[in-house]
Amino acid sequence: MAELKLHDLELSGNCYKIRLFCALLGLKPDIAPVDFLSGAHKKSPLIERNPFGEVPVLEDGDLTLRDSQAILVYLARKYGGERWLPTEPAPMAEVVSWLMVAENEIARGPNDARLHDKFGDDLDVDLARRKAERILGLMEAYLKTRRWLVLDGPTIADIACMPYVALSHEGGVSLDPYPAIRAWISRIKALPGFISMPAL
Amino acid sequence: MAELKLHDLELSGNCYKIRLFCALLGLKPDIAPVDFLSGAHKKSPLIERNPFGEVPVLEDGDLTLRDSQAILVYLARKYGGERWLPTEPAPMAEVVSWLMVAENEIARGPNDARLHDKFGDDLDVDLARRKAERILGLMEAYLKTRRWLVLDGPTIADIACMPYVALSHEGGVSLDPYPAIRAWISRIKALPGFISMPAL
Repeated sequence: MAELKLHDLELSGNCYKIRLFCALLGLKPDIAPVDFLSGAHKKSPLIERNPFGEVPVLEDGDLTLRDSQAILVYLARKYGGERWLPTEPAPMAEVVSWLMVAENEIARGPNDARLHDKFGDDLDVDLARRKAERILGLMEAYLKTRRWLVLDGPTIADIACMPYVALSHEGGVSLDPYPAIRAWISRIKALPGFISMPAL
Repeated sequence: MAELKLHDLELSGNCYKIRLFCALLGLKPDIAPVDFLSGAHKKSPLIERNPFGEVPVLEDGDLTLRDSQAILVYLARKYGGERWLPTEPAPMAEVVSWLMVAENEIARGPNDARLHDKFGDDLDVDLARRKAERILGLMEAYLKTRRWLVLDGPTIADIACMPYVALSHEGGVSLDPYPAIRAWISRIKALPGFISMPAL
Protein backbone atom coordinates (compact mmCIF):
# COMPACT_ATOMS: atom_id res chain seq x y z
CA MET A 1 0.00 0.00 0.00
CA ALA A 2 2.91 2.33 0.66
CA GLU A 3 3.72 2.03 -3.03
CA LEU A 4 0.44 3.54 -4.25
CA LYS A 5 1.16 6.83 -5.98
CA LEU A 6 -1.47 9.10 -7.49
CA HIS A 7 -0.52 11.72 -10.07
CA ASP A 8 -3.13 14.22 -9.08
CA LEU A 9 -4.81 17.54 -9.84
CA GLU A 10 -6.74 18.94 -6.90
CA LEU A 11 -9.47 20.61 -8.96
CA SER A 12 -10.10 17.59 -11.21
CA GLY A 13 -13.24 15.65 -10.36
CA ASN A 14 -11.68 12.60 -12.00
CA CYS A 15 -8.68 12.79 -9.64
CA TYR A 16 -11.00 13.45 -6.71
CA LYS A 17 -12.84 10.18 -7.46
CA ILE A 18 -9.61 8.33 -6.79
CA ARG A 19 -8.70 10.32 -3.65
CA LEU A 20 -12.23 9.76 -2.34
CA PHE A 21 -12.30 6.05 -3.04
CA CYS A 22 -8.86 5.58 -1.47
CA ALA A 23 -10.11 7.39 1.63
CA LEU A 24 -13.22 5.18 1.81
CA LEU A 25 -10.98 2.10 1.53
CA GLY A 26 -8.56 3.40 4.17
CA LEU A 27 -5.74 3.66 1.60
CA LYS A 28 -3.25 6.50 1.80
CA PRO A 29 -1.60 6.93 -1.62
CA ASP A 30 1.34 9.24 -2.10
CA ILE A 31 -0.19 12.27 -3.81
CA ALA A 32 2.03 13.70 -6.56
CA PRO A 33 0.50 17.04 -7.66
CA VAL A 34 0.82 17.55 -11.42
CA ASP A 35 1.78 21.03 -12.65
CA PHE A 36 -1.17 21.18 -15.03
CA LEU A 37 -0.77 24.84 -16.04
CA SER A 38 2.73 24.18 -17.36
CA GLY A 39 1.47 21.06 -19.16
CA ALA A 40 3.45 18.52 -17.12
CA HIS A 41 0.86 15.85 -17.98
CA LYS A 42 1.78 16.21 -21.65
CA LYS A 43 5.55 16.00 -21.14
CA SER A 44 8.12 13.45 -20.03
CA PRO A 45 8.09 11.63 -17.66
CA LEU A 46 4.27 11.61 -17.27
CA ILE A 47 3.51 11.24 -20.98
CA GLU A 48 5.38 7.91 -20.99
CA ARG A 49 3.22 6.71 -18.11
CA ASN A 50 0.03 7.87 -19.84
CA PRO A 51 0.32 8.61 -23.57
CA PHE A 52 -3.23 10.05 -23.42
CA GLY A 53 -1.74 13.03 -21.55
CA GLU A 54 -4.33 13.13 -18.80
CA VAL A 55 -4.63 12.74 -15.06
CA PRO A 56 -5.28 10.82 -12.87
CA VAL A 57 -2.54 8.25 -13.28
CA LEU A 58 -2.10 5.62 -10.58
CA GLU A 59 1.05 3.66 -9.88
CA ASP A 60 0.95 0.56 -7.72
CA GLY A 61 4.47 -0.86 -7.65
CA ASP A 62 5.33 -1.70 -11.25
CA LEU A 63 1.79 -1.19 -12.51
CA THR A 64 0.67 2.08 -14.11
CA LEU A 65 -3.00 2.75 -14.86
CA ARG A 66 -4.87 5.53 -16.66
CA ASP A 67 -8.56 6.54 -16.72
CA SER A 68 -10.36 7.29 -13.49
CA GLN A 69 -13.04 4.66 -14.03
CA ALA A 70 -10.47 1.93 -14.72
CA ILE A 71 -8.51 2.96 -11.64
CA LEU A 72 -11.67 2.63 -9.53
CA VAL A 73 -12.10 -0.90 -10.93
CA TYR A 74 -8.52 -1.76 -10.01
CA LEU A 75 -8.75 -0.43 -6.47
CA ALA A 76 -12.12 -2.13 -5.91
CA ARG A 77 -10.87 -5.49 -7.13
CA LYS A 78 -7.55 -5.33 -5.30
CA TYR A 79 -8.47 -3.63 -2.03
CA GLY A 80 -12.27 -3.60 -1.80
CA GLY A 81 -13.48 -7.21 -1.89
CA GLU A 82 -16.90 -7.78 -3.47
CA ARG A 83 -18.61 -4.81 -1.86
CA TRP A 84 -17.64 -2.02 -4.24
CA LEU A 85 -17.55 -4.04 -7.47
CA PRO A 86 -19.41 -7.35 -7.37
CA THR A 87 -18.12 -10.05 -9.73
CA GLU A 88 -21.52 -11.62 -10.41
CA PRO A 89 -22.40 -10.94 -14.07
CA ALA A 90 -25.55 -8.83 -13.65
CA PRO A 91 -24.46 -6.46 -10.86
CA MET A 92 -20.97 -6.11 -12.35
CA ALA A 93 -22.50 -5.12 -15.70
CA GLU A 94 -24.85 -2.68 -13.99
CA VAL A 95 -21.94 -1.05 -12.20
CA VAL A 96 -20.06 -0.83 -15.51
CA SER A 97 -23.09 0.73 -17.23
CA TRP A 98 -22.85 3.60 -14.72
CA LEU A 99 -19.08 3.86 -15.16
CA MET A 100 -19.96 4.46 -18.83
CA VAL A 101 -22.43 7.19 -17.82
CA ALA A 102 -19.55 8.84 -15.93
CA GLU A 103 -17.29 8.53 -18.99
CA ASN A 104 -19.90 9.65 -21.50
CA GLU A 105 -23.07 11.49 -20.47
CA ILE A 106 -21.67 13.11 -17.32
CA ALA A 107 -18.35 13.95 -18.98
CA ARG A 108 -20.11 15.54 -21.98
CA GLY A 109 -22.70 17.26 -19.74
CA PRO A 110 -21.88 18.81 -16.35
CA ASN A 111 -18.15 18.19 -16.68
CA ASP A 112 -17.87 19.93 -20.07
CA ALA A 113 -20.01 22.85 -18.82
CA ARG A 114 -17.65 23.24 -15.85
CA LEU A 115 -14.58 23.03 -18.10
CA HIS A 116 -16.00 25.96 -20.07
CA ASP A 117 -17.09 28.11 -17.17
CA LYS A 118 -14.27 27.44 -14.71
CA PHE A 119 -11.28 26.71 -16.95
CA GLY A 120 -12.16 28.54 -20.16
CA ASP A 121 -12.23 25.48 -22.41
CA ASP A 122 -13.39 26.29 -25.94
CA LEU A 123 -16.50 24.14 -26.35
CA ASP A 124 -20.25 24.45 -27.00
CA VAL A 125 -21.42 25.24 -23.48
CA ASP A 126 -25.11 25.41 -24.45
CA LEU A 127 -24.88 21.87 -25.79
CA ALA A 128 -23.05 20.77 -22.64
CA ARG A 129 -25.78 22.29 -20.44
CA ARG A 130 -28.51 20.58 -22.47
CA LYS A 131 -26.66 17.28 -22.07
CA ALA A 132 -26.26 18.00 -18.34
CA GLU A 133 -29.99 18.54 -17.93
CA ARG A 134 -30.76 15.36 -19.84
CA ILE A 135 -28.52 13.11 -17.73
CA LEU A 136 -29.56 14.81 -14.51
CA GLY A 137 -33.20 14.19 -15.42
CA LEU A 138 -32.49 10.52 -16.13
CA MET A 139 -30.59 10.13 -12.86
CA GLU A 140 -33.27 11.95 -10.89
CA ALA A 141 -35.95 9.58 -12.20
CA TYR A 142 -33.75 6.59 -11.47
CA LEU A 143 -32.81 7.67 -7.94
CA LYS A 144 -36.39 8.51 -6.95
CA THR A 145 -36.90 4.86 -5.98
CA ARG A 146 -33.33 3.90 -5.05
CA ARG A 147 -30.77 4.88 -2.43
CA TRP A 148 -27.75 3.86 -4.55
CA LEU A 149 -27.16 3.40 -8.27
CA VAL A 150 -26.67 -0.38 -8.03
CA LEU A 151 -27.65 -2.86 -5.33
CA ASP A 152 -28.39 -1.85 -1.71
CA GLY A 153 -25.17 -0.06 -0.88
CA PRO A 154 -22.52 2.16 -2.39
CA THR A 155 -20.42 0.84 -5.26
CA ILE A 156 -17.83 2.43 -7.52
CA ALA A 157 -20.79 3.41 -9.73
CA ASP A 158 -21.73 6.02 -7.13
CA ILE A 159 -18.12 7.13 -6.66
CA ALA A 160 -17.62 7.52 -10.42
CA CYS A 161 -20.82 9.46 -11.05
CA MET A 162 -21.04 11.73 -8.03
CA PRO A 163 -18.21 14.28 -8.38
CA TYR A 164 -19.14 16.05 -11.62
CA VAL A 165 -22.85 15.81 -10.81
CA ALA A 166 -22.21 17.47 -7.44
CA LEU A 167 -20.07 20.14 -9.15
CA SER A 168 -22.81 20.99 -11.69
CA HIS A 169 -23.21 24.50 -10.24
CA GLU A 170 -19.66 25.28 -11.39
CA GLY A 171 -20.90 24.82 -14.95
CA GLY A 172 -24.00 26.95 -14.46
CA VAL A 173 -26.38 24.04 -13.87
CA SER A 174 -28.40 24.07 -10.65
CA LEU A 175 -29.31 20.90 -8.76
CA ASP A 176 -32.38 22.59 -7.24
CA PRO A 177 -34.80 20.67 -9.54
CA TYR A 178 -33.25 17.33 -8.57
CA PRO A 179 -34.04 16.43 -4.93
CA ALA A 180 -33.37 12.71 -5.35
CA ILE A 181 -29.90 13.48 -6.71
CA ARG A 182 -29.22 15.85 -3.83
CA ALA A 183 -30.28 13.18 -1.31
CA TRP A 184 -28.01 10.63 -3.02
CA ILE A 185 -25.05 13.04 -2.84
CA SER A 186 -25.79 13.52 0.87
CA ARG A 187 -25.72 9.76 1.39
CA ILE A 188 -22.30 9.57 -0.25
CA LYS A 189 -21.07 12.48 1.88
CA ALA A 190 -22.19 10.56 4.99
CA LEU A 191 -20.06 7.48 4.21
CA PRO A 192 -17.38 6.70 6.83
CA GLY A 193 -14.05 8.12 5.67
CA PHE A 194 -15.59 10.59 3.18
CA ILE A 195 -13.35 13.45 2.10
CA SER A 196 -14.39 16.51 0.09
CA MET A 197 -12.83 18.66 -2.64
CA PRO A 198 -12.99 22.40 -3.41
CA ALA A 199 -16.51 23.68 -4.31
CA LEU A 200 -18.19 20.39 -3.44
CA MET B 1 -29.54 -19.12 -23.75
CA ALA B 2 -32.75 -19.28 -25.74
CA GLU B 3 -33.91 -16.36 -23.62
CA LEU B 4 -31.23 -13.95 -24.84
CA LYS B 5 -32.86 -11.18 -26.85
CA LEU B 6 -31.00 -8.32 -28.51
CA HIS B 7 -32.82 -5.15 -29.52
CA ASP B 8 -30.70 -4.40 -32.52
CA LEU B 9 -29.90 -1.97 -35.31
CA GLU B 10 -27.92 -3.55 -38.13
CA LEU B 11 -25.92 -0.43 -39.04
CA SER B 12 -24.97 0.39 -35.44
CA GLY B 13 -21.40 -0.50 -34.55
CA ASN B 14 -22.48 -0.70 -30.92
CA CYS B 15 -25.10 -3.33 -31.75
CA TYR B 16 -22.61 -5.14 -33.97
CA LYS B 17 -20.23 -5.48 -31.00
CA ILE B 18 -22.87 -7.54 -29.25
CA ARG B 19 -23.76 -9.63 -32.30
CA LEU B 20 -20.05 -10.30 -32.88
CA PHE B 21 -19.28 -11.23 -29.29
CA CYS B 22 -22.32 -13.54 -29.15
CA ALA B 23 -21.07 -15.23 -32.31
CA LEU B 24 -17.57 -15.66 -30.87
CA LEU B 25 -19.10 -17.20 -27.73
CA GLY B 26 -21.38 -19.48 -29.76
CA LEU B 27 -24.50 -17.73 -28.44
CA LYS B 28 -27.52 -17.25 -30.69
CA PRO B 29 -29.63 -14.40 -29.31
CA ASP B 30 -33.03 -13.59 -30.72
CA ILE B 31 -32.43 -10.49 -32.82
CA ALA B 32 -35.24 -7.93 -32.52
CA PRO B 33 -34.65 -5.23 -35.16
CA VAL B 34 -35.55 -1.78 -33.86
CA ASP B 35 -37.38 0.57 -36.22
CA PHE B 36 -34.87 3.35 -35.65
CA LEU B 37 -36.16 5.72 -38.34
CA SER B 38 -39.59 5.84 -36.71
CA GLY B 39 -37.94 6.37 -33.32
CA ALA B 40 -39.04 3.09 -31.76
CA HIS B 41 -36.09 3.26 -29.35
CA LYS B 42 -37.54 6.44 -27.86
CA LYS B 43 -41.07 5.10 -27.42
CA SER B 44 -42.86 2.48 -25.34
CA PRO B 45 -42.11 -0.37 -24.82
CA LEU B 46 -38.37 0.11 -25.49
CA ILE B 47 -38.05 3.37 -23.58
CA GLU B 48 -39.16 1.58 -20.41
CA ARG B 49 -36.43 -1.00 -20.95
CA ASN B 50 -33.84 1.69 -21.59
CA PRO B 51 -34.75 5.23 -20.51
CA PHE B 52 -31.62 6.48 -22.30
CA GLY B 53 -33.44 5.78 -25.59
CA GLU B 54 -30.61 3.93 -27.29
CA VAL B 55 -29.72 0.55 -28.69
CA PRO B 56 -28.39 -2.03 -28.09
CA VAL B 57 -30.56 -3.36 -25.27
CA LEU B 58 -30.05 -6.93 -24.12
CA GLU B 59 -32.59 -9.06 -22.30
CA ASP B 60 -31.55 -12.27 -20.57
CA GLY B 61 -34.63 -13.67 -18.90
CA ASP B 62 -35.76 -11.04 -16.38
CA LEU B 63 -32.62 -8.96 -16.73
CA THR B 64 -32.44 -5.95 -19.04
CA LEU B 65 -29.14 -4.20 -19.75
CA ARG B 66 -28.18 -1.05 -21.61
CA ASP B 67 -24.83 0.22 -23.00
CA SER B 68 -22.81 -1.93 -25.37
CA GLN B 69 -19.71 -1.99 -23.16
CA ALA B 70 -21.72 -3.08 -20.11
CA ILE B 71 -23.42 -5.78 -22.16
CA LEU B 72 -20.01 -7.10 -23.23
CA VAL B 73 -19.02 -7.28 -19.55
CA TYR B 74 -22.20 -9.20 -18.75
CA LEU B 75 -21.78 -11.72 -21.56
CA ALA B 76 -18.08 -12.20 -20.77
CA ARG B 77 -18.73 -12.82 -17.08
CA LYS B 78 -21.75 -15.06 -17.63
CA TYR B 79 -20.78 -17.03 -20.73
CA GLY B 80 -17.08 -16.39 -21.36
CA GLY B 81 -15.13 -17.61 -18.32
CA GLU B 82 -11.93 -15.72 -17.52
CA ARG B 83 -10.70 -15.51 -21.09
CA TRP B 84 -12.55 -12.45 -22.34
CA LEU B 85 -12.63 -10.48 -19.09
CA PRO B 86 -10.11 -11.58 -16.48
CA THR B 87 -11.08 -10.92 -12.85
CA GLU B 88 -7.54 -10.26 -11.60
CA PRO B 89 -7.31 -6.56 -10.64
CA ALA B 90 -4.68 -5.36 -13.11
CA PRO B 91 -5.87 -7.04 -16.33
CA MET B 92 -9.51 -6.32 -15.49
CA ALA B 93 -8.70 -2.64 -15.03
CA GLU B 94 -6.72 -2.60 -18.26
CA VAL B 95 -9.66 -4.10 -20.14
CA VAL B 96 -11.95 -1.50 -18.56
CA SER B 97 -9.57 1.32 -19.56
CA TRP B 98 -10.10 0.27 -23.21
CA LEU B 99 -13.85 -0.03 -22.74
CA MET B 100 -13.61 3.63 -21.71
CA VAL B 101 -11.68 4.43 -24.89
CA ALA B 102 -14.56 2.86 -26.83
CA GLU B 103 -17.09 4.93 -24.87
CA ASN B 104 -15.13 8.17 -25.04
CA GLU B 105 -12.32 8.73 -27.55
CA ILE B 106 -13.60 6.34 -30.24
CA ALA B 107 -17.21 7.45 -29.80
CA ARG B 108 -16.23 11.13 -30.06
CA GLY B 109 -13.81 10.46 -32.92
CA PRO B 110 -14.47 7.97 -35.73
CA ASN B 111 -18.01 7.20 -34.54
CA ASP B 112 -19.09 10.86 -34.49
CA ALA B 113 -17.48 11.45 -37.91
CA ARG B 114 -19.45 8.49 -39.30
CA LEU B 115 -22.67 9.73 -37.67
CA HIS B 116 -22.18 13.01 -39.54
CA ASP B 117 -21.22 11.58 -42.92
CA LYS B 118 -23.49 8.55 -43.06
CA PHE B 119 -26.52 9.57 -41.01
CA GLY B 120 -26.45 13.37 -41.24
CA ASP B 121 -26.03 14.07 -37.55
CA ASP B 122 -25.55 17.75 -36.80
CA LEU B 123 -22.15 17.87 -35.15
CA ASP B 124 -18.68 19.37 -35.62
CA VAL B 125 -17.24 16.87 -38.07
CA ASP B 126 -13.84 18.58 -38.26
CA LEU B 127 -13.48 18.20 -34.51
CA ALA B 128 -14.60 14.57 -34.76
CA ARG B 129 -12.00 13.86 -37.44
CA ARG B 130 -9.26 15.51 -35.37
CA LYS B 131 -10.28 13.35 -32.42
CA ALA B 132 -10.34 10.30 -34.69
CA GLU B 133 -6.78 10.96 -35.83
CA ARG B 134 -5.62 11.45 -32.26
CA ILE B 135 -7.03 8.17 -30.95
CA LEU B 136 -5.96 6.27 -34.06
CA GLY B 137 -2.43 7.59 -33.57
CA LEU B 138 -2.42 6.50 -29.93
CA MET B 139 -3.75 3.05 -30.81
CA GLU B 140 -1.26 2.67 -33.67
CA ALA B 141 1.66 3.40 -31.35
CA TYR B 142 0.25 1.01 -28.74
CA LEU B 143 -0.42 -1.83 -31.19
CA LYS B 144 2.99 -1.58 -32.84
CA THR B 145 4.38 -3.88 -30.13
CA ARG B 146 1.26 -5.86 -29.25
CA ARG B 147 -1.07 -8.29 -30.94
CA TRP B 148 -4.07 -7.51 -28.70
CA LEU B 149 -5.03 -4.57 -26.53
CA VAL B 150 -4.67 -6.48 -23.26
CA LEU B 151 -2.83 -9.70 -22.43
CA ASP B 152 -1.85 -12.29 -25.05
CA GLY B 153 -5.23 -12.97 -26.58
CA PRO B 154 -8.47 -11.25 -27.52
CA THR B 155 -10.60 -9.73 -24.76
CA ILE B 156 -13.75 -7.62 -24.79
CA ALA B 157 -11.37 -4.63 -25.04
CA ASP B 158 -10.69 -5.63 -28.64
CA ILE B 159 -14.35 -6.33 -29.35
CA ALA B 160 -15.42 -2.97 -27.92
CA CYS B 161 -12.82 -0.91 -29.77
CA MET B 162 -12.68 -2.56 -33.17
CA PRO B 163 -16.01 -1.78 -34.88
CA TYR B 164 -15.92 2.03 -35.08
CA VAL B 165 -12.17 2.01 -35.73
CA ALA B 166 -12.70 -0.38 -38.65
CA LEU B 167 -15.58 1.80 -39.92
CA SER B 168 -13.43 4.98 -39.90
CA HIS B 169 -13.62 5.29 -43.68
CA GLU B 170 -17.37 5.86 -43.38
CA GLY B 171 -16.52 9.07 -41.51
CA GLY B 172 -13.94 10.19 -44.02
CA VAL B 173 -10.93 8.93 -42.06
CA SER B 174 -8.55 6.55 -43.82
CA LEU B 175 -6.74 3.75 -42.01
CA ASP B 176 -3.92 3.78 -44.59
CA PRO B 177 -1.47 5.48 -42.20
CA TYR B 178 -2.14 2.89 -39.49
CA PRO B 179 -0.69 -0.52 -40.44
CA ALA B 180 -0.59 -1.86 -36.88
CA ILE B 181 -4.31 -1.09 -36.48
CA ARG B 182 -5.10 -2.78 -39.78
CA ALA B 183 -3.16 -5.88 -38.73
CA TRP B 184 -5.04 -5.93 -35.40
CA ILE B 185 -8.40 -5.70 -37.23
CA SER B 186 -7.30 -8.61 -39.43
CA ARG B 187 -6.48 -10.69 -36.34
CA ILE B 188 -9.97 -10.05 -34.98
CA LYS B 189 -11.51 -10.95 -38.34
CA ALA B 190 -9.62 -14.26 -38.21
CA LEU B 191 -11.12 -15.33 -34.87
CA PRO B 192 -13.20 -18.53 -35.03
CA GLY B 193 -16.87 -17.64 -35.33
CA PHE B 194 -16.24 -14.07 -36.56
CA ILE B 195 -19.17 -12.38 -38.28
CA SER B 196 -19.09 -9.09 -40.19
CA MET B 197 -21.41 -6.11 -40.67
CA PRO B 198 -22.16 -3.82 -43.61
CA ALA B 199 -19.14 -1.74 -44.79
CA LEU B 200 -16.70 -3.53 -42.50
